[in-house]
Amino acid sequence: MTSSRLTGVIAAAATPIREDRSIDLEKLVAHCRRLLDNGCDGINLLGTTGEATSFSVEQRLEAMAAVARSGLPLDRFMVGTGAAALADAIRLTAAARDHGFAGALLLPPFYYKGIDRDGLVGYVEAVIAGAGPNGLRLYLYHFPQLSGVPYTADVVEHLRRAHPGQVLGLKDSSGDLDYSADLARRLPGFAVFPSSEASLGRADELGFAGCISATVNVNAPLAGRAWRERRTKAGSAALEAAGAVREALGKVPLVAAVKWALATLSGDDGWRRLVPPLRLLLPAEQQTLERALAETAFAELNWVRQ
Amino acid sequence: MTSSRLTGVIAAAATPIREDRSIDLEKLVAHCRRLLDNGCDGINLLGTTGEATSFSVEQRLEAMAAVARSGLPLDRFMVGTGAAALADAIRLTAAARDHGFAGALLLPPFYYKGIDRDGLVGYVEAVIAGAGPNGLRLYLYHFPQLSGVPYTADVVEHLRRAHPGQVLGLKDSSGDLDYSADLARRLPGFAVFPSSEASLGRADELGFAGCISATVNVNAPLAGRAWRERRTKAGSAALEAAGAVREALGKVPLVAAVKWALATLSGDDGWRRLVPPLRLLLPAEQQTLERALAETAFAELNWVRQ
Repeated sequence: MTSSRLTGVIAAAATPIREDRSIDLEKLVAHCRRLLDNGCDGINLLGTTGEATSFSVEQRLEAMAAVARSGLPLDRFMVGTGAAALADAIRLTAAARDHGFAGALLLPPFYYKGIDRDGLVGYVEAVIAGAGPNGLRLYLYHFPQLSGVPYTADVVEHLRRAHPGQVLGLKDSSGDLDYSADLARRLPGFAVFPSSEASLGRADELGFAGCISATVNVNAPLAGRAWRERRTKAGSAALEAAGAVREALGKVPLVAAVKWALATLSGDDGWRRLVPPLRLLLPAEQQTLERALAETAFAELNWVRQ
Repeated sequence: MTSSRLTGVIAAAATPIREDRSIDLEKLVAHCRRLLDNGCDGINLLGTTGEATSFSVEQRLEAMAAVARSGLPLDRFMVGTGAAALADAIRLTAAARDHGFAGALLLPPFYYKGIDRDGLVGYVEAVIAGAGPNGLRLYLYHFPQLSGVPYTADVVEHLRRAHPGQVLGLKDSSGDLDYSADLARRLPGFAVFPSSEASLGRADELGFAGCISATVNVNAPLAGRAWRERRTKAGSAALEAAGAVREALGKVPLVAAVKWALATLSGDDGWRRLVPPLRLLLPAEQQTLERALAETAFAELNWVRQ
């Protein structure tokens, strides 16, 4: 992997799929390019919004390879490599490093619950040893609401101090800014990314490296401006507009909402498809979403059409 | 798959691993054979106790193939085929059918949470369609404490009525006997297996098909007798003795306890190995376990040595 550090607004890119539920590689690459051209500093490929865990290891490796050969700047990409199976996480994490992506975003193993410090540290260290520590750039992915296994601050601190060259940061999708701020304070130089662009207004104060967000798939230009111009009035206005779009999307199941928004903005209905167990918005949910988005800058977000 | 129905005492077989964390296929086959020869009516290969989700799809397919070519009676095997990724669950479930195993035990997709009825039904129906319904014999695996996604009674009833030839039963690891009993009452002919041999004493009354249990790896002869002689005094005594061993094992992390017990009874220390995030018992846990087992028939369970 490169030596650059990921910072700023990182989109947790949605993954377009074909009718047979395979990943539409061409459309995925085009979407990533558009995001980078329209305000995003980086891309989180194959995260939760990207439905990574709904694809086989082979499908995930194929998507990584497609992005790697696309000519896009891999030093702006962080790839989700988490898996329930240790052998899978090792294979995906090694591939992320070998392709030259700037980071691998590692979920905890998410089937067994009640995993203690020894179990979780043992797993991450087995991934590091299995993939080979050389050139590994790991970001821990804290999302206890889905994984059921928190990266407690104690575990994070231990892993960072034991592997300072490999364990570079953390994505915090818990929504608990106190947890993010505590880690940023405890571990100088450790890159902490909350999952909401709403946190960008306090990023300097709390020591965040930026954000990694699902809704940036839709509001990229607003979120990008909110970050770049964060000490200006224009930045504050962009932050508010981005936040309104985010809040509207969050009123219904989020990944489906993001894909519905991309389909609507791009005119490409194929964007709506999801891999089960995620499902299309129900008519009532779609109505809720449309009403909520009508109160925002959503209709002006025509960058997706480019 | 065969047309026989699985019933009785089914062991959720532990999976022995080599030093490199690959599955020790020879030892796995030998363990399954011993279980069937010592009181078990069936084997649940690669379930939660078998650490299935900690292995790659290829490792799981290899283990299935090894058992299939071992000459063991496949009509007494149910194989865990659940995976977070739809494509993986389809591949594993189809392989279970194609090998001729009597059943495929299907976890819900266990990464995303808050999955509703439509999402969960959509996933199971996508597995059925993807694997091909012909000859498919599915058992739903309800374990909300680990999967985070319950097979609600409503979903189970819908799937059973919509696919009576494919959806044959359910393993209930929730520990909620009311849930098991409710399903057995609602759905005659649907095979419901609680996860504890302690339930065998009420199996006839509540309409259970038997049990699928982790601790039967250790107390197989006792659990087998408890089932076969369940209307006799000897059966009640065996049930009590089996329950005492189970209770002792449950005082510490269960999969590690079962593997420790197998190592201790067989004299083969390799049995202790686990795939991270599961870990060896800590010294204090081992002491707790030894003390608890000393009050039971554990020391007499020398069938494991055969």
